[in-house]
Amino acid sequence: MAYKMNPEKMYMMPTHFGPSAGPRQGPDGGKFECKDNPKSKSVSVSFLTNREQLEEFLPPGNFELGEEPVVSVFASYMTEIEWLAGRGYNVLGVTFPVVFKGKEDRAQGSLLTVLWENLCDPILTGREQLGFSKVYCELPDPTVLRGETHAIASWLGFKFLDIKLTNMHEIPLPPPASPSGPSNEPRDGVLTGTLHYKYMPRTGEWGTPDAAYTVLTPSEGGHGRTTELWHGEGTVEFHKARWEDMPTQYNIVNAFHELEIKEYRSATFSRGIGGKDLSDQRILR
Amino acid sequence: MAYKMNPEKMYMMPTHFGPSAGPRQGPDGGKFECKDNPKSKSVSVSFLTNREQLEEFLPPGNFELGEEPVVSVFASYMTEIEWLAGRGYNVLGVTFPVVFKGKEDRAQGSLLTVLWENLCDPILTGREQLGFSKVYCELPDPTVLRGETHAIASWLGFKFLDIKLTNMHEIPLPPPASPSGPSNEPRDGVLTGTLHYKYMPRTGEWGTPDAAYTVLTPSEGGHGRTTELWHGEGTVEFHKARWEDMPTQYNIVNAFHELEIKEYRSATFSRGIGGKDLSDQRILR
Amino acid sequence: MAYKMNPEKMYMMPTHFGPSAGPRQGPDGGKFECKDNPKSKSVSVSFLTNREQLEEFLPPGNFELGEEPVVSVFASYMTEIEWLAGRGYNVLGVTFPVVFKGKEDRAQGSLLTVLWENLCDPILTGREQLGFSKVYCELPDPTVLRGETHAIASWLGFKFLDIKLTNMHEIPLPPPASPSGPSNEPRDGVLTGTLHYKYMPRTGEWGTPDAAYTVLTPSEGGHGRTTELWHGEGTVEFHKARWEDMPTQYNIVNAFHELEIKEYRSATFSRGIGGKDLSDQRILR
Amino acid sequence: MAYKMNPEKMYMMPTHFGPSAGPRQGPDGGKFECKDNPKSKSVSVSFLTNREQLEEFLPPGNFELGEEPVVSVFASYMTEIEWLAGRGYNVLGVTFPVVFKGKEDRAQGSLLTVLWENLCDPILTGREQLGFSKVYCELPDPTVLRGETHAIASWLGFKFLDIKLTNMHEIPLPPPASPSGPSNEPRDGVLTGTLHYKYMPRTGEWGTPDAAYTVLTPSEGGHGRTTELWHGEGTVEFHKARWEDMPTQYNIVNAFHELEIKEYRSATFSRGIGGKDLSDQRILR
Repeated sequence: MAYKMNPEKMYMMPTHFGPSAGPRQGPDGGKFECKDNPKSKSVSVSFLTNREQLEEFLPPGNFELGEEPVVSVFASYMTEIEWLAGRGYNVLGVTFPVVFKGKEDRAQGSLLTVLWENLCDPILTGREQLGFSKVYCELPDPTVLRGETHAIASWLGFKFLDIKLTNMHEIPLPPPASPSGPSNEPRDGVLTGTLHYKYMPRTGEWGTPDAAYTVLTPSEGGHGRTTELWHGEGTVEFHKARWEDMPTQYNIVNAFHELEIKEYRSATFSRGIGGKDLSDQRILR
Repeated sequence: MAYKMNPEKMYMMPTHFGPSAGPRQGPDGGKFECKDNPKSKSVSVSFLTNREQLEEFLPPGNFELGEEPVVSVFASYMTEIEWLAGRGYNVLGVTFPVVFKGKEDRAQGSLLTVLWENLCDPILTGREQLGFSKVYCELPDPTVLRGETHAIASWLGFKFLDIKLTNMHEIPLPPPASPSGPSNEPRDGVLTGTLHYKYMPRTGEWGTPDAAYTVLTPSEGGHGRTTELWHGEGTVEFHKARWEDMPTQYNIVNAFHELEIKEYRSATFSRGIGGKDLSDQRILR
Repeated sequence: MAYKMNPEKMYMMPTHFGPSAGPRQGPDGGKFECKDNPKSKSVSVSFLTNREQLEEFLPPGNFELGEEPVVSVFASYMTEIEWLAGRGYNVLGVTFPVVFKGKEDRAQGSLLTVLWENLCDPILTGREQLGFSKVYCELPDPTVLRGETHAIASWLGFKFLDIKLTNMHEIPLPPPASPSGPSNEPRDGVLTGTLHYKYMPRTGEWGTPDAAYTVLTPSEGGHGRTTELWHGEGTVEFHKARWEDMPTQYNIVNAFHELEIKEYRSATFSRGIGGKDLSDQRILR
Repeated sequence: MAYKMNPEKMYMMPTHFGPSAGPRQGPDGGKFECKDNPKSKSVSVSFLTNREQLEEFLPPGNFELGEEPVVSVFASYMTEIEWLAGRGYNVLGVTFPVVFKGKEDRAQGSLLTVLWENLCDPILTGREQLGFSKVYCELPDPTVLRGETHAIASWLGFKFLDIKLTNMHEIPLPPPASPSGPSNEPRDGVLTGTLHYKYMPRTGEWGTPDAAYTVLTPSEGGHGRTTELWHGEGTVEFHKARWEDMPTQYNIVNAFHELEIKEYRSATFSRGIGGKDLSDQRILR
């Protein structure tokens, strides 16, 4: 009499009401092409820091730091998302370059250490289906005043981040890469993309995981394209938080607050259209 | 050089910044007693429906419907929560009675089919650590007008639920049960409490779970106590949602919308203090 | 010992802390040019209704209905507003054509019957300084799904308006009008612009106004320019509200709900830059 | 053909849709008794400051500072408000004692220099009908953690105030004052209550007011009663704001930030029920 789960479908809690609807499975079980949506604008600032500080963030299991200890902080503001029936939401991520040398797979790219989002629904699908380290914060639209773009992030009113861009100038877009061209293929068998460490605790056995593995968002594929690109100067500032200020995330914010900023490397503003549904997310072994 | 996870501690994504802080692990690794907090007020309405309709919601794995097909819809509005450094949040749940007959365990109680909450952070800890089927919605404080208490729930502005209480009268509180008394003990080896079906998908193998098991919130233990109790009349109305209205949850809301309401059984308003940290959550086998 | 108010400066309550800062008076007493800001996107739908229904909305004092009883409902979503230090806010207005024949002044244009805004600060400056009939509501960004743009408005969660645009096609922009050209001048002494009826009650003498007069936002002047224009099909639907739903605004929403929609006349989407600070707002006599 | 305004009714902009509904005029034109609502909890901290600093805030027109230069900062969190159909909202005010010696009237009491509220609708009725200096801010429910009550206020995310209460102990309530007893009557013709300076600018004549007069909220009358009272220790801290942080209110917040705190005088927490509709608000001459 109980329901049976269809192994051809994707499920998430609650499982009692049929397959779940989300970014990779529409209401009719269909997929979303992500061709003319979402529309997004993005800010990004990167800086050089200490190898030693970043190495403390390397997850267990065959990770090494990439060539240079450069941290990138980016925020994207998305609209017209089809799987949300045309709504939008915003994200804020922190990455640095890593190399993965597993038993079977070799990969290089950026480790997405955390991705804040201002909507719970994609946080759930992202954590559970994809292994993204997503957590919640408020991400209001950046303000623009007399040439300065200012993005902030807060949690229940505590502002923990300021990103500022100034002296931005538009630069010509590079010719679009051939989407299936050889440059995106794994070189010498080394996969490229964004890396994540998925971890799910086991109920009642609190130090034990139900799942603990490395996952990859491959860099190739999808319909994402940049339509506008600006370069300039930028700064990023994480503000020290007490447990009382951010009782679930103070450790994350303070870790970034402690990072030495040796020099800023780049600051960009961009607009783009399209993406992919990330159904090509895969486990690295 | 990578970090090592301490098997004595609880972790959640992102795991890169040390053990996670949450309801069951404080900033110093300590626990929260939940003795004089949270404070809560709650509304609840239950109704008789069809056995056949409820049986379709029974998860795989040894579940049977309980004695009567009575659905309870409750909402709690909590403040002064210590693990959130004194903040509050609200929840909305739907349960019905079930019996679990596993290979090792037998249990009876309420199946928590879904628990909406209006804050992402406890949704994440609840899903991943405890196996609660938590999802997000807006839960504003109930309005009270000329004797009618009116609670609503919405998702990004779409109101999907109205709960109304009228003709409420306060009733004397029962004497507090002896907290370790025999009445809360499993009778004949049958455990009692709230049951959940935990499910976590495996990345890239979309029909396969990383975890899929039944869990129990035992009814005994903790410091929760009711300080005020009112009985009266109530109604509950789930509003039909299109995919466009609730693209991630329309299936949940519509399932409840379709339930026949044969007769209302009870309507309560209550206030309470205290609870437990749910670290006694366990897997049923 | 008490402070003196500087007659060269603008004040609003509270007056105790010096001249007020707002759209027409900056922190240094300076003005805002509104040349490269704000940026805005706008939707608009208009429809033919009954003369008799609109005439009931004509304020006392020399108003007549304009040529055709056509109601326009528009919403604008503004960003990068300099006087708000780069923040944005949104507005929703309802107008119809009127003619004003006063003792001294003659004017024609649109009567702005109400302007909802989603930020209190410009509501206060607009009501008190300009005589705009501004009130508050929530105005989330429109959703865009498979070619349909959908704007909504709500008050504390009660959705009272749906605007939908479909089949939009971009049309060439008209050449910019010469900003000081003769076409914007009052013709035969008839002023043109947006008309408002300002009313401020007198404390304690509840049926008596402190101020009650007609004001005009002249159509000429300023740096506003349209940068993108689309035409297509649209609908507008005001939802009937009970007092319980909108206890301060149900009468406004229901008045529009009752308007017969004889036929739709136009539906537009546009983007624009710039504006004016409205310091040319003036009383009509 | 235009509408006529009924001199027996209260109106606010927009006046085109009939008499306005609000705290002093219900949907049927009736009044609200305010007997069993609203319910409120309040925090208050007062401190001694300099006479010279406060005298700069005295409005034109016969105001003098009261006996002691003591500033009170209070916040109230209200629910079950009948005129809002059972909803709630919160307020934050700053007062100090003044004496008013007009041509006709003499009064003493507190000058309400500003009253922040977190809902626009009562801000409009309060400013225009009553002459309260109301402006908008966010006022989340106070947090309570390990004996400390912490109230904050922010404007679009910029936190400008912290109020903290500690070591609170409940004290017996004084016997209720006879509501129509002689102690509340004006003594020697001196009226008592809360004083305000109402100011409304005239459109187009920017330094000239449409209205500028002193108003009084009489202390007597109404059904308000305190049901619980706690005394203890408290602090209040206004945070310096740049124009960029609070472009419409930085002058208000900074004026309070600059006040010397010579010593704290009292800190209270209270709960109460009932009030009055303030229709006895009157002009002082």
